[in-house]
This record gives sequence, structure tokens and C-alpha cells, in this order.
Amino acid sequence: MALVAPIEDQSASPAVRAIYDDIRTTRKTDYVNNFWKVLANDPAALERTWATVKQVMAPGSLDPLIKEMIYVAVSITNNCEYCIHSHVAGARAKGMTPQMFDELIAVIALASANNRIANGYRIEVDERFK
Amino acid sequence: MALVAPIEDQSASPAVRAIYDDIRTTRKTDYVNNFWKVLANDPAALERTWATVKQVMAPGSLDPLIKEMIYVAVSITNNCEYCIHSHVAGARAKGMTPQMFDELIAVIALASANNRIANGYRIEVDERFK
Amino acid sequence: MALVAPIEDQSASPAVRAIYDDIRTTRKTDYVNNFWKVLANDPAALERTWATVKQVMAPGSLDPLIKEMIYVAVSITNNCEYCIHSHVAGARAKGMTPQMFDELIAVIALASANNRIANGYRIEVDERFK
Amino acid sequence: MALVAPIEDQSASPAVRAIYDDIRTTRKTDYVNNFWKVLANDPAALERTWATVKQVMAPGSLDPLIKEMIYVAVSITNNCEYCIHSHVAGARAKGMTPQMFDELIAVIALASANNRIANGYRIEVDERFK
Amino acid sequence: MALVAPIEDQSASPAVRAIYDDIRTTRKTDYVNNFWKVLANDPAALERTWATVKQVMAPGSLDPLIKEMIYVAVSITNNCEYCIHSHVAGARAKGMTPQMFDELIAVIALASANNRIANGYRIEVDERFK
Amino acid sequence: MALVAPIEDQSASPAVRAIYDDIRTTRKTDYVNNFWKVLANDPAALERTWATVKQVMAPGSLDPLIKEMIYVAVSITNNCEYCIHSHVAGARAKGMTPQMFDELIAVIALASANNRIANGYRIEVDERFK
Repeated sequence: MALVAPIEDQSASPAVRAIYDDIRTTRKTDYVNNFWKVLANDPAALERTWATVKQVMAPGSLDPLIKEMIYVAVSITNNCEYCIHSHVAGARAKGMTPQMFDELIAVIALASANNRIANGYRIEVDERFK
Repeated sequence: MALVAPIEDQSASPAVRAIYDDIRTTRKTDYVNNFWKVLANDPAALERTWATVKQVMAPGSLDPLIKEMIYVAVSITNNCEYCIHSHVAGARAKGMTPQMFDELIAVIALASANNRIANGYRIEVDERFK
Repeated sequence: MALVAPIEDQSASPAVRAIYDDIRTTRKTDYVNNFWKVLANDPAALERTWATVKQVMAPGSLDPLIKEMIYVAVSITNNCEYCIHSHVAGARAKGMTPQMFDELIAVIALASANNRIANGYRIEVDERFK
Repeated sequence: MALVAPIEDQSASPAVRAIYDDIRTTRKTDYVNNFWKVLANDPAALERTWATVKQVMAPGSLDPLIKEMIYVAVSITNNCEYCIHSHVAGARAKGMTPQMFDELIAVIALASANNRIANGYRIEVDERFK
Repeated sequence: MALVAPIEDQSASPAVRAIYDDIRTTRKTDYVNNFWKVLANDPAALERTWATVKQVMAPGSLDPLIKEMIYVAVSITNNCEYCIHSHVAGARAKGMTPQMFDELIAVIALASANNRIANGYRIEVDERFK
Repeated sequence: MALVAPIEDQSASPAVRAIYDDIRTTRKTDYVNNFWKVLANDPAALERTWATVKQVMAPGSLDPLIKEMIYVAVSITNNCEYCIHSHVAGARAKGMTPQMFDELIAVIALASANNRIANGYRIEVDERFK
């Protein structure tokens, strides 16, 4: 059980309900996932987080699938079980193939190893990279 | 100063020198960066790390620029100064525009915030994501 | 199951039992939670960890509720499930309201996002902050 | 040097300049720190980040000094040098005494140790905490 | 359930099957654990990861038990539940006693606390350590 | 500059001075490093941290060199620059050879990569490891 109870549609305030509706419309689904229902306990947080997600994850110089995969990479590195599950699902829905997922994991693993090597030996940044 | 001295070409063993040459050829540059010169103190580590980098960062289902940006996302999350500098340089060389870099940072920041929200409230993974 | 078995009162040595009693007295409860029962496998660790908790979490320039919330913030950032549950319970027992918990999470999420922005762009520390 | 150049007032767009002015007014200072000047390269990120900071760090159920200290706790745990410097400065400006800072560090250190103990032994969450 | 299905012997390609056999032979067991069966979805990753494990975890200047304990220390700090369970099992199989495990946890906890103290106060590295 | 000034012998209280002397005697050196001089601003923290270091890092089931290397592994994973420098120096003083340091880094890198693989694919812990 989450540390606060999720808020379902029927007990949501009009403001919260309007955001749930926008989530459904934007994502073309009738499903609102637990993240939003729990966050709804803090309506201001719900509003600004959803607004940020809409803005940041929208198509831009990077397409939404790439953004989902970057989101997954951060979530794995921070070890957020919820976010890994929900954003792997999101990436798959946007077209991530099994091969792409394997390559994503492989890059994350490689970077994690090399991050520790560079930090461990305290390797100096090359002048040309600064 | 790194905790062990970088090994320059003139003092490298033939095996290490061969890897430096392969780095130069593969990357079409005459520059070998400090990461490899420090890692060369452990020739087996140099060899397997370079082989892994060549394999993992090569074109595949994900293109090399996307892989570089995922690498940067992990390096920022793990906070590896060396790796951020070297792989931002790598991503820019492969075509990352200022807009793409800004969007990359924005996704990383968003995911980091939401990772903490999900972990903090101990939000349960929706059945449909499992 | 934990990787080592918790030690219950009846099988505890007198020294461990004395610490359990001090935990009960200090916290005005008859309950000793799993953290201490598992740590009791290493009596020296149990003793010094309990002594440190008593000293550090006591009223000082910061009051115990504030300290519990800082403890929760660190536990969320390090992603310790046990510690989040036990210290959210502790903070609530000391008076943390739902609003305070929401604000705590909101600050943690904001700081996590901005930590990545600052590290990602490698923003230089302003002279006046040093 | 940051990976992108800070934007000074004279070269800022009117929208960016308006946010700089709001930062100055809100904080009762004529100084805009590097975080904002670098983030200004992405005006949408600047706008939403500043709006979030204003909303989240404002007085609420927790007072601004407590929020600053929680922010510092997260920044130390994530190891963001920039954020530690800037928010320790902010906390001191809001009244954090040397004793409060020492107690803050002591709680962070204690929580970090106990997070690893609980995760290391895989201690099960007590039923009563769930 | 893992995000991709484990591959059992009967459905493994000859190349994957050969690695499973090498794992069994090298470890003198008929058991191949889930890590490898899931990773087998990416045969190239399976091959290079197993080759690295064989090379890095073999006896060298450090004996295999010490290496297992260092592996556990990293896994606890990164909070990888799977890796903690599997490598604590591995360390016990190689001779880690309960006392050694307790001391391992104690060092990890101490280092984690002091890491935050040093980062929190931004303590300068002594000239003689550089 | 650290965020609080180090306390030198001549301005130390008798209690702090006694701990500095114990550090010198225990370590058979006339040098007290910056960690302790900064921590001395909080005499209670100085006393309990030094007592814990003496107890935890002393010879036991694990010898002091192994403990130093585990300490380094945690410090690299947490990315504490100060602690990496000071404890690599400590490990070298206790006999860590260049080969041992390379093997230490190699195990840390391998574990970091595999931690992300296991967390990323959400690999289930094998029954026999529980």
C-alpha cells in the first residue's frame, strides 16, 4: 500500500478531476495510473507535475520514444521500481522493440561501469572536452 | 592528477598501443583521451572495456547519437564529471544540437523528480504495467 | 526474509536485552522494530548505532520532528524502503501532518530535479556562495 | 566553465528578463545566480523551474528555513556541489545557525549509514509500519 | 516477473546453451541463475558479461571471496536487491562467515556516513593525499 | 574552502585536542587530516565518528587492508572525492599494490554494470538465494 491513499474519480475535487480528464484525453486512454491518483493528494503538485510532463515529454527536437527511453535510463539509475515499470510500458507503447530495450540496458550498464572507473581513478577531464 | 599516471604512446606496450591505434582508427581522430590512457594501467581492463564500447555504442536498433545521449543521462544521474564532459562532447560531435541537449536535461530532471515522488509515497505498480 | 534472522528478547544476550529495554524506555513503547532485532546479530554495531540515534535524533537546535523529516528525505533519495516506512511512521507519530508530508515530498522532488540540472550543465558555483 | 554559456541581462529576451526581474523582486536582491542564467538557454525550462521553486519553497506547513535544509539534505545525498553551496547560503540567509548546520549533517550521515544497514541485511518492513 | 522472459535451456540457441554450460562448468553447479537466463535475450550481452565476470572475479591479487564482498558492497550502495541476494549467497559459498558479513555491513555503513559528512561540509582534499 | 573552517590544534578545546592526540597515536603519525579538523566544529560528532572508525576499521574477521578497500568501493559508488583520495592513500599505506587497486576498480565497475542490468530488467531473485 502506498503511504497515502490514491484518489479515485468519484472522490476527486473538480480541479483534480479536470486533470484526470486531461490525462485521459492527452494519452488517448481511459486509464489514469496510480502515480497521478496518489499525487492528487497534493493538488498543486498534481497540477504542476502534469503540466511539466505534458511540456517536457511532448515531441520536440527529440521524439517522444527517445524521451521515454531517456526517462527509463534515469529511472533505472535512480532505481525507481514504479517508474521503470510505467515508463518501459510507455516506451513499448510508443514503439520500443525488444532489441531497442536490450540496447538501452546495454548502454546504461556500460555507462555505469565507466562512470565508476572514471570516478575511481579520478581521471582528469581532457582540456579539449571543457 | 588522476590516482594513477596516464600511459602515453611512447611508453605503451605493443598490446596497449594496438588498442590506442584501434581507438584512433575507429573514431577517425589522432586523439586518445585520458580515460583510455589511465585505464591502460590495467591492460586487460583496457581491452575488454574498449571491446564493449565498440560493440555497445555501434549503430544498431538505436543510432549512435541516441546512445550517446542515454550515456550522458546515466552519467549525469551517477554524477560522473569526466563522463559528462567526454560524452557531451561525443554527442555534439554526432549532431546533438543545443535544443536537443536542453531537452535531454529537461527529461533527466523530470524523471529524477518523479522517481523521488514514486519512491517517497511508495506508489504501487499498477497491475497493467507488470 | 532478512539475510540474517532477527533476535527476539528470549534469545537475546543480557547486553542486547539491555539495549532493547533502553529502546523501549526511550521511545515509550513496548515495541522493538526489526531494524534493531536484525542489527543485534552484531552487538557492537547495535550498541553504537543506538547510541548514535539517541544522540543525533534528540532535541537540539532542530526539533525531533524536523530531524525525522530530514531522515525521511535522505532515505527517499537513497531509496531505502525499510527506512522510508519506519521514519514516515516516526514523523507522523511526532506530528507530521498530511500537508507537511506532501510539502516534504515536493521539496525532495524539486531538489532532485535541480541537482541534475546543475550537474548536467556543469554550472559553476557563484563566487559569492563559496 | 558550464557546458552552455550563462545569459546576462543585456542579452536576455524580454521573457527571460521578466523572470530575472521576478527572481530579484521575490528574493529582495539584485543578484541572479548562475543556475538561472544557464537555465535561461531553455526559456520554457527557466519559466517552469522558477514557478515551481516559488510555489514549493514558499511558506506553507513547513517554513522556508526547514525547506532549505531539506533541500540541502537531498543535494548532499545526490552530491550536487552547486546546489550544496547555493542552498547552504540560502539556509544561512534564512537563519540556519552553525549548530543547526552541524545537526543537519549529523542526521544526514546517520540516515545514510542506517539506509545501507537496512538495505544490506534486507530487513523486512514491520507490519505496523505499512 | 522480469520485464523479459528468462530463456531456459530447451529454448536456448546453441551459442546461449554453450555459455550456460560454461557457467555450470566454471561454477561446478548444475544451476544457472535468473540473471543469465534473462540476459540471454541479448546474446551478445550475455557473452561479453559472462566473459567479464569470469575474468574479473577470478583469483588474482585479490582472492575471489574478497572480490565477492566488494561486489556486495557496491550492490548495497547501488541498492540492487537481486545482486545483494545472489552475491551474498556467492560470498557465503566462498567462506564468508556471519562475522565477516557483519563487518562488511559495518564498513559500508561507516563509509556511507562519512561520505556524506565530507561532501556536506565540502571538505578540501589534503595536499598530501593528492 | 570547506563550508566551515577547520580547527587547528592551537584553537582546539581540550576535548577536541584529546581526540586529535588519539588519532595521532592510533595512526602512528603526527598528521591529522582535514576530515577531523572540519568535523571538530561539532565535538560530539567528532567523538562518536572517531570512536566508530576506531572500532569498525580495526582488525577483526576482515583485515584492515580489506576494510580500506571496501571503504574505497563505497566511496567511489557514492562519489565522495575526499573519501576516495584519503582512503586510497590509507589502503596504499596498508599494502594495496597497483594490481590490487586495478582489480578493486574492475570489480566495482562490473558490479555497477550488473546492478543496472538486474534492476533494469527487474530480474526476480532466485528462490534458492532467499
